[in-house]
Amino acid sequence: MKKHNIILQPSGRRGQVDEGTSVRSAARELGVEIESICAENATCGKCMVLVEAGRFEKYNIESSQENLSPVGTEERAYLERRPKLLKDKGWEIGQVRLSCQAKICGDVLINVPEESRGNKQIVRKSASNREIEVKPAIRKYLVSMSPPTLERPVADWERLAKGLETSMGLVRGGEEKLPRWYDFEIDYACLRALAKTLRDAKWNVTVTVRNDKEVIAVQAGYHEDSYGAAVDIGSTTVALYLCNLRTGEVLASESEMNPQIVYGEDVMSRIQYAIDQPDGLEKLHKAIIATLNKLLSQAAHTAKIRLYDIHEMVLVGNSTMHHVLLNLHPKDLGLAPFVPTIHKSVDIKTRELGLHINPSGNIHILPTIASFVGADTSAVILAEEPHKQDENWLLIDVGTNAELVLGNRKRLVCTSTPTGPALEGAHVEYGMRAAPGAMERVHIDETTLEPKYKVIGVNGWNTEHAEFTGQVKGICGSAIIDSVAELFRAGIVDSRGKFKKDLDSKRVRQGESGWEYVIAWKEETSIGRDIPITQQDVRQIQLAKAALFTAARTLLKRMDLQSPDKIILAGGFGSYIDKEKAMLIGLIPDCELDKVYAVGNAAGDGARIALLNIEKRREIDAVTRKVERFELPTDPEFQNQFMLATSFPHMSEPFEHIAQLIPNRKADPLAKNFMSK
Amino acid sequence: MKKHNIILQPSGRRGQVDEGTSVRSAARELGVEIESICAENATCGKCMVLVEAGRFEKYNIESSQENLSPVGTEERAYLERRPKLLKDKGWEIGQVRLSCQAKICGDVLINVPEESRGNKQIVRKSASNREIEVKPAIRKYLVSMSPPTLERPVADWERLAKGLETSMGLVRGGEEKLPRWYDFEIDYACLRALAKTLRDAKWNVTVTVRNDKEVIAVQAGYHEDSYGAAVDIGSTTVALYLCNLRTGEVLASESEMNPQIVYGEDVMSRIQYAIDQPDGLEKLHKAIIATLNKLLSQAAHTAKIRLYDIHEMVLVGNSTMHHVLLNLHPKDLGLAPFVPTIHKSVDIKTRELGLHINPSGNIHILPTIASFVGADTSAVILAEEPHKQDENWLLIDVGTNAELVLGNRKRLVCTSTPTGPALEGAHVEYGMRAAPGAMERVHIDETTLEPKYKVIGVNGWNTEHAEFTGQVKGICGSAIIDSVAELFRAGIVDSRGKFKKDLDSKRVRQGESGWEYVIAWKEETSIGRDIPITQQDVRQIQLAKAALFTAARTLLKRMDLQSPDKIILAGGFGSYIDKEKAMLIGLIPDCELDKVYAVGNAAGDGARIALLNIEKRREIDAVTRKVERFELPTDPEFQNQFMLATSFPHMSEPFEHIAQLIPNRKADPLAKNFMSK
Repeated sequence: MKKHNIILQPSGRRGQVDEGTSVRSAARELGVEIESICAENATCGKCMVLVEAGRFEKYNIESSQENLSPVGTEERAYLERRPKLLKDKGWEIGQVRLSCQAKICGDVLINVPEESRGNKQIVRKSASNREIEVKPAIRKYLVSMSPPTLERPVADWERLAKGLETSMGLVRGGEEKLPRWYDFEIDYACLRALAKTLRDAKWNVTVTVRNDKEVIAVQAGYHEDSYGAAVDIGSTTVALYLCNLRTGEVLASESEMNPQIVYGEDVMSRIQYAIDQPDGLEKLHKAIIATLNKLLSQAAHTAKIRLYDIHEMVLVGNSTMHHVLLNLHPKDLGLAPFVPTIHKSVDIKTRELGLHINPSGNIHILPTIASFVGADTSAVILAEEPHKQDENWLLIDVGTNAELVLGNRKRLVCTSTPTGPALEGAHVEYGMRAAPGAMERVHIDETTLEPKYKVIGVNGWNTEHAEFTGQVKGICGSAIIDSVAELFRAGIVDSRGKFKKDLDSKRVRQGESGWEYVIAWKEETSIGRDIPITQQDVRQIQLAKAALFTAARTLLKRMDLQSPDKIILAGGFGSYIDKEKAMLIGLIPDCELDKVYAVGNAAGDGARIALLNIEKRREIDAVTRKVERFELPTDPEFQNQFMLATSFPHMSEPFEHIAQLIPNRKADPLAKNFMSK
Repeated sequence: MKKHNIILQPSGRRGQVDEGTSVRSAARELGVEIESICAENATCGKCMVLVEAGRFEKYNIESSQENLSPVGTEERAYLERRPKLLKDKGWEIGQVRLSCQAKICGDVLINVPEESRGNKQIVRKSASNREIEVKPAIRKYLVSMSPPTLERPVADWERLAKGLETSMGLVRGGEEKLPRWYDFEIDYACLRALAKTLRDAKWNVTVTVRNDKEVIAVQAGYHEDSYGAAVDIGSTTVALYLCNLRTGEVLASESEMNPQIVYGEDVMSRIQYAIDQPDGLEKLHKAIIATLNKLLSQAAHTAKIRLYDIHEMVLVGNSTMHHVLLNLHPKDLGLAPFVPTIHKSVDIKTRELGLHINPSGNIHILPTIASFVGADTSAVILAEEPHKQDENWLLIDVGTNAELVLGNRKRLVCTSTPTGPALEGAHVEYGMRAAPGAMERVHIDETTLEPKYKVIGVNGWNTEHAEFTGQVKGICGSAIIDSVAELFRAGIVDSRGKFKKDLDSKRVRQGESGWEYVIAWKEETSIGRDIPITQQDVRQIQLAKAALFTAARTLLKRMDLQSPDKIILAGGFGSYIDKEKAMLIGLIPDCELDKVYAVGNAAGDGARIALLNIEKRREIDAVTRKVERFELPTDPEFQNQFMLATSFPHMSEPFEHIAQLIPNRKADPLAKNFMSK
C-alpha cells in the first residue's frame, strides 16, 4: 500500500498513512480527534478542515488540494448550501474539506480549526483558570437503518441498536471501548415511542445516548446539540445554567429566590417546619420543584430550545436543600447526631422528580459530605480542586452557615459552623441584602473619625458627590464588615469590640440601645433616619467572625498547619467583601493578602463542571468519600478558642500579615500578639 | 496452627482445616456451601448441621461432639426456642449445631441436612426432569449497624452499605466477587423510607438486594424469605405462580381468563382493536394490569404473605401479549413485515407498570423472537433446553397460533403458523372448550362403525354406563382430533378428508350442511340435539394440521433433517390430545411415538425458571439472539407443501412410524407413501 505524509496543524502532529485513508481517520491515527456527529454521512459539517497548498520546507513536503480525493456529490451539496459560512471565514470549496470524506492520495498539510477539534474544552475563570474537557454523560448519534422486510423482520430496537453500534464506531473511533449492540439499553418511556418515531422518520433518526449505554431519546432526522442544566439551590437563591452539552457553552443563566423562604429564613427553621407540619416536607419539596420548572422554562425560552430537548441536569445545594429536593425528610439533619440520609451522589429519572424536561432524562445530584457540609461544598471542591494541590488550600463558603475545607492532594478535612445572618446583612439594625440603596463600602478617617461610603447603584464615594442625599437605605454585608474593621482600625472600638466613650466625634454617641457610630445622617438617607452601626451590630460580627475563625483554626490544627497557603472565598459573600478588612477583623486566618481569592459562585461552577464532564462526577464521589469531617462542638478546645476569637483581630496566635495592614495602630492592651510585631 | 480432619456428609468431601475455623467456613473451604441469612449472628438457623459421634474406619477418624467448641449463649438461645423442631427431627442440642457458631477443635464428621445446603435446586418435571439451581435476582441479608454518633455521623445509606458489605461477605463467603459498599445502589422509593426505617428498627434490618447491587427494600428486624411471581399471559388464560425465591417452592398458583377476550378472541382481532380504537391499547393494557393485580392479590392471600413482600416478577406471553403488557402499540406485529418493537428482555420498575407489589421491585419480561414467536416461546426453550442437546428436538406450542422451534446446541430455527381455533374446539360445529360436559376422547369401532367416548366430569367410557344420558354438551379440542383420526382410521373419511357415502351406518348421513358422522344421539346430550362431526369440521382440522405440518416440514428442511429425534408438545393442548391420534392424522411429523412428549405449561415453567435463576435470563437472551426465524409465506414451496399436507396422514414424504399405528388400514389411492409400507 502506498503511503503519504500528513501534517496536522496547529498541533504539528505528523506521520505517514495509507493512500485512501480519510483525513479524519488519518488524524485519529496521529492522535488528533476531529469531531463528527453524522456518522460520516457528510451532513453535520462538524469535521471541516483546511488544506494548505505550497511547499513546506520545515516538513519537507509539497502540499496540494489535488493530493486529496475530489469533492464528492454529498460533500459539495453540503458546502454549497452554506455560502455565508464559507464567505465569513474566507474559505473556498476545495480548500475547505469535510475530513470524513476527503481521502489522502498525496502529501498534505491540514489545518484543523478550533471548532472542528474533538474533546472540546471550557475554561473556568477561577484561581486556576483551568480548562475543563467537555465529556458529557449524553451524546447524540445519527443512525440510518434499512427498513424491515419480510426477509429481515428484525425488531425496531435491535435494528436501532445495531445501527447505533455502527454510528458510534464511526463517530467515536476505534480507540474507545464501545459497547456491543446487545448491551445497549433503552429507557422505557423512550421505548414506548420507538415504533412510531422510526416509521415517521423513515428510519433516519438522531439517537441520544446516556453513558454510552442507555438510549434516552430518538428523534426524527438530524439534530446535533444536546442540552443540560446545572443548578445551585441556595437557601436564598436558586441559580440555573442551561448549557450546550456538545460545546460546553452556557446558553442561559436564570435565577430566582428560593420559594422555601416563606417557610423559614434559614435551613434550621425549614427543617423545623418539616418536623412540625404533617405536610411540611411535601410543601417545601413542591415549592422547589415548581421553581426549578419555572427556571427551566425561562432558560429554554431564552435559549430558544424545547424543554423536551434538555436531557440531563446536575443539582447541588446544602444538605437540607439536597434532602428536600429529593423529598427525603430533613429531620435528622437538624437533630443530633446530625446525619444525612445519603452522602453518595444520586441519579434519578426526571419523571420520578416531576421536572418538566425530557421524562427519560437523568438528574444527577452531587454527594453530600456531612449534615452541614452539603452537595454545594462538593461542587466547590470540584471547581477549585484542593484535592489536586501540593499546597494546603482553605476553601470557605460563607452564608448563614459557613463550610470550610482544608487540605491538599493527600488529605482533606472539613467542618462547618453557623455564622448567623449578620455577615449577609440580616439581623443587623440597619442591615439589608445587597440591592440598590445599600451601603457596600465604608472608610473612616483615623484622624477626623469621619466616614465615607459607597452605595449600590451610585458611582464613587458619597463624598465625591456635591449633593448626596436620600440615596441610602441600609447597610449590606460587605459594608458591615468594612464598618466594623474601620471602627477598629480608627480606634473607635477596642480589640474587645467595645466603643470608646471619650472620643471627640458627634458620630460616636449613646443611642437607644447603647453606644453607636453614625455612618449616615438622616439627610443622606431615603428612610429619614440616621443610620448607625451599634454596639449590638459589632457584637454580631464578633460572634460570626469568631465562629468562622475558630472553625478555620480547628482545621488548621487538625492538619498541623499554622496557616493555609491559599484562601479561597466561594459564594457571593466572598466576592463582595474587602478581603483586607475581613482579615483585619480576623474573619479569615492570617495569610498573604494576594493569596486570598474570591471565586464567586464556585458551587454553581462545580455543578456545571459535573454537567459537562461525566468523569468529574466519579472524581468528586471518590474525593468526598475520603474527606474527613470534624464537628466543632466535639473539639475539646472549641469553647475556649471561640471566646478568644471574638477579639479583634483575634488573640490566639500571631498574625504577621494582618499586622502589616495597620502599622500605625495604637497599642491595645488586649492585642498582645499584635503588639509583639 | 494445629489442623484437624473434617468429613462432610452426604457429599463425602474431606480435608484438614485450621483449629478454630467455624464448621461453615470449613465446609466452604471444602466446596460445600451451607446456607446462612443472618450474617452468622446465630439467629436464622439456616446453617444447622449434625455432628456424628464415633469411630469412622473408612476415614480413619474419631468424631465427637466434644471436638467442636461448646454451644454458646446465642446458639443455645436459638435452639432452645425451637423444641418442636428438634423433637420432630429427633435431634438434640449438642448433636445439632449452628455451623456458623461451632468451631473445630478436633476431628469431626458432619452431616449437612438437605435443608441447610446452599444453592438449592428445584426439579422441573419434564422430558428431562432437570434440576434447576435456585439463584434468584434478589436476596435478603440481615444487617446490624451501630447507631450514628456525633463522633461518627456517617449518613444512613453509607452506614447501611458498609454493614451490607460485611453481611454479604459473611453470608455468601469469600469465593464470590462481591461489590464494595460504595458500589451499592439504592432504589429511590426505598431511599425515601430509609431514615425512618433504620431508626424504627434500632439499626437492625433485613436488606433486600437485587443483582448483588441495588437495595430495593429495608425492613425492620429479621426476615428470611423473598417472594416473586412468574406469569404466563396467554391469549386465553393468565397463569401466575407465586414462589419463595430462597427455596424455589411454589406457594400459590392462580389463573384467570385473559380479560382482553372481550376486545377480541385472538391476537389479530386485539391488534385490530388497538388500531381501530383511539384508546384501544390503553383499554387492553389496563385490562391485563388489573387482572395481574387480581391474581397477585389472590396468590398473596393464599400464601399468607403481603403483596409488598413480592419483589420480583417474570412475565412471558406471545408478542402481542408482551407488547400490550408493556403498553407498546402492537400495530406493527399485525401488519407486514410483522416486526416487534423489541426482542431483548425488558427490565422495568414495578411502579412504572402500576403493579401492586413492592414499588421498588423489578419486572423482567423474557425476550421475543419474532412477531408471532413471542416471549412464551422463549420460556418454552428455557424450560426444555433444545439449545443444550446433541439431538434435534422439535418444540411445538399449539394454540390458535402454533410456534415451532427445531434444533440442537449448534443451531436453532423457528417459525410460526396460524392453526385457527379448531384445534382448541372453537369454530367447530359443536366445539367447546375443555370443561365439564365436553367430550374429550372418541373411539370408533372399525367393524360396526359405532363410537364410544369419554366426557369431562364422568369416569370411563359412555358405553360402560348403563344409563348414559344428558351428560354431553359438545366436543373439546382433543376429542375433535380423536374423532377425525378415528373417522380416517375406520375408513369413514378417505385420505382427502371426504366422507364415504356408501357405508352401512345410520351415523353417517347427509346433514344440514353436508355429510356428517353422529357421535352422540340427542338422548345422550344435555342440549337435546344430535352431536355430529361434519365435513366442515373435518376440513377445519385438515387446514390446521396442514399448517402445523408444513411449518414443521419447513424447519426440518432448513435443518436438512428427515425427522426430529424428539417432539415436545408444550401447552395445555399437547397434554390433552392423544399423541397417537395426532400423528395418525399428520398433525405432527413422523417420529417414534415414545419420543413424543407432552410437557404441559412449559411457558409457565420457563417463566418460573427465569424467576428463580438469574443466570437463565442471560442464557435465554443469548440463545434467542441466535435463533433463526423463518417466515413461512416467504418459503417458495409453502403453498405446494400446504396443499399436499391437507391429506391424511400427509402426502409429502414417507411416514414409517405412522404406518405402524394402522397396520390393517385398507388401501387408499391417495395414500401412496403409506401404501408403500
